[in-house]
Amino acid sequence: MSLEWLARTGVPWSAAPDVVAARRLDRSGWEPDGAPAAVVFPRDVEDVQAVLTGAFLTRTPIVPRGAGTALTGATTAGAGEVVLDLAGMNRILDIRPADGVAVVEPGVITADLDRAAAEHGLRYAPDPASLEISTIGGNIATNAGGLRCAKYGVTRDAVLGLDVVLAGGERLSTGRATLKGVAGYDLTGLFVGSEGTLGVIVSATLRLRPLPAATSTIAAYYPDIEAAAEASVALAEARIQPVLAELLDQATLDAIDPALRSSGSALLIVQLDGGPAEAADAASVLGKGAVSVQVSQDPEHLLYARRQALPSIERLGRPLIEDIAVPRSKLALAVREIGAIAARHDVPICTLAHAGDGNLHPIIVAGSYGSPIPEAASRAADEIFELALTLGGTVTGEHGVGVLKRQWLAREAGPFSLGLQQQIKAVFDPHGILNPGKAL
Amino acid sequence: MSLEWLARTGVPWSAAPDVVAARRLDRSGWEPDGAPAAVVFPRDVEDVQAVLTGAFLTRTPIVPRGAGTALTGATTAGAGEVVLDLAGMNRILDIRPADGVAVVEPGVITADLDRAAAEHGLRYAPDPASLEISTIGGNIATNAGGLRCAKYGVTRDAVLGLDVVLAGGERLSTGRATLKGVAGYDLTGLFVGSEGTLGVIVSATLRLRPLPAATSTIAAYYPDIEAAAEASVALAEARIQPVLAELLDQATLDAIDPALRSSGSALLIVQLDGGPAEAADAASVLGKGAVSVQVSQDPEHLLYARRQALPSIERLGRPLIEDIAVPRSKLALAVREIGAIAARHDVPICTLAHAGDGNLHPIIVAGSYGSPIPEAASRAADEIFELALTLGGTVTGEHGVGVLKRQWLAREAGPFSLGLQQQIKAVFDPHGILNPGKAL
Repeated sequence: MSLEWLARTGVPWSAAPDVVAARRLDRSGWEPDGAPAAVVFPRDVEDVQAVLTGAFLTRTPIVPRGAGTALTGATTAGAGEVVLDLAGMNRILDIRPADGVAVVEPGVITADLDRAAAEHGLRYAPDPASLEISTIGGNIATNAGGLRCAKYGVTRDAVLGLDVVLAGGERLSTGRATLKGVAGYDLTGLFVGSEGTLGVIVSATLRLRPLPAATSTIAAYYPDIEAAAEASVALAEARIQPVLAELLDQATLDAIDPALRSSGSALLIVQLDGGPAEAADAASVLGKGAVSVQVSQDPEHLLYARRQALPSIERLGRPLIEDIAVPRSKLALAVREIGAIAARHDVPICTLAHAGDGNLHPIIVAGSYGSPIPEAASRAADEIFELALTLGGTVTGEHGVGVLKRQWLAREAGPFSLGLQQQIKAVFDPHGILNPGKAL
Repeated sequence: MSLEWLARTGVPWSAAPDVVAARRLDRSGWEPDGAPAAVVFPRDVEDVQAVLTGAFLTRTPIVPRGAGTALTGATTAGAGEVVLDLAGMNRILDIRPADGVAVVEPGVITADLDRAAAEHGLRYAPDPASLEISTIGGNIATNAGGLRCAKYGVTRDAVLGLDVVLAGGERLSTGRATLKGVAGYDLTGLFVGSEGTLGVIVSATLRLRPLPAATSTIAAYYPDIEAAAEASVALAEARIQPVLAELLDQATLDAIDPALRSSGSALLIVQLDGGPAEAADAASVLGKGAVSVQVSQDPEHLLYARRQALPSIERLGRPLIEDIAVPRSKLALAVREIGAIAARHDVPICTLAHAGDGNLHPIIVAGSYGSPIPEAASRAADEIFELALTLGGTVTGEHGVGVLKRQWLAREAGPFSLGLQQQIKAVFDPHGILNPGKAL
């Protein structure tokens, strides 16, 4: 394909095979057909506008990219596509502590913003597991969740306004810099989670929250998954709102260390930032039915098992990290049923869950790295999505749809809703040049 | 106009002048041209579908209505329009305490849901001032705020999913019954705050939160508005998140009782539900710079002045309740500038503010009831909206656009954004029959 239009924009770009190959995939394992034609490196909003104007006129498909940490194929790019690499637009433009607001470019690493906010006694609350490597733009494009969203909400809840470049190169501002506002339709919410299919985020106005004074962490082992899930519901019933509530099932504990089996069959790790009285209340609630309860004031000490979970599972083989959410009361049932699916297909599945909001990550160990994904693993994944829908849940709690879950989105949303969403897409991107084949 | 189509739906309806007149206005003072042709009283989803199918085929404009408490003209209906009165669809369909979820019809009175949730130790958090008379459907259509949203968020934050009937009579489900989910575009967010222009909400899946164990209220008087605003920022800096933080300016205090002038020139009322240690910390923070500080465990006692504010102002004349939001740090400046606007136009303006989120309600005393609104009051209102935009804020924090603020929305959003919003409207309502002339 001719890239004359791209050269004429004056924006730095490259079609060198190694540059292109390094930006072709994300972390999903999805392989697009062929390699993208080029990668372009915008330095500012005007660069993004120039690229999209040229792409619009030449009908060239554009794949916006942050750090490429998507788990769904959302940032993969194939033949005939141009990757818009936003990693270089990584300035924190403004932090206004008195307003509790930050303004950032899309390429800012999430943890970098959090650290910059901390200098003002504030935090950027959303904390996807990828926060040290993923970008704010990517987090917004996927409405990323994380651990702390049990108390502080998902990325959507932290986004007040966006500056976006549309498919035709036009610039659009959505939302506002105030904490509240209802003027017009919620375009901000529409862009959050739209996986780069409606426009390219060039800056975001984000809400910061006060850093907690101190954090207590509680790790409680239970004899079975039901007892652990019940403990997490009991916490809510006791009006205690943990910052995070992470549940690890037996298969996960076995992967971390078979010796943990003597501690119990399920581990619930809870973190609290409401002061010592709240922590003591929580420990007492979690103690009922527990095999053991440990409390620590070191925020990372008891999170160790949770942090070790994925690396430990990766040692068993290639992990397929799934992501479903179910009504909170169905959490234990979902873990049990996932165990049954694993047994039925003879595929190891380790399940981690954000227990506070019913979001489960069943991690399927799908053979060895580099080999094709076993048929049984794919069948198990399908049964997990089916299970989510059967239990009144959703096929994606926080990772998004990308390429891999498009059929399942169609099942969950139905053709009528999907048709409306495609019409909304057409309003913003009439020629379908923005991240085609993703999200819908 | 012929209403044969309406009669053929089999849905109860009336064109009796008193029935129609009782559903022509809202609480904005806006007078539509003429009277609507009829009012229709759907009993269930099928009724709503039948009415909208008939309206679609005959191109009849439909004005959905809950309790008619809008302050913007959003639920006014004029000649040639048919009012869809949803007040009768007022069943609480389900409360699932273990999931923290309720499913309700749109006509449920907000406070009734809150009371039903309380039987399970839960609450429906959003609490617009109208909560005893307004409906959930109306709250969702305007993305209603309230006092408690300082801590618990606005209506948007409580809506997990919606069941909607579109202009053609089709039924659409948005969102989900789980606390988290990112499958597809955020259609739920699009409907919240769209003022009945995109579809008719026929049921909503709502998030319930634990009822707090106990509430402390602190009332602090300050020598001036700057000191009161600073105290509210100091609270945030001390990492204390009040449930509500209400600021009353001098004009408001004078309206309530001129004797209050001896207490101070500004009153900040803060409510907390995080336990006694948090309340003690808050009292200490608020004490700095205060003339006096009072603490009460009775949740209503110290809120008395706030509850009395509007009735007191109403005794001075007809109130125009305005609604702007500014960045939190601009709160005191905004109150001062509103005072200057009042002086310049010789119009009394009393300002209440939800200090936690920078949302101000300047209440303009606009002559006597029944007389035309004085020119000076309208000019003062315009200057208040101009002020909001100048300070980087918005022309509506929580009341919405309706009819009255359409020109200001155009100013705030700009023609490009407004054009996109109109295209989204056309996707859902191609013939423009749903609440025409409102919101955009």
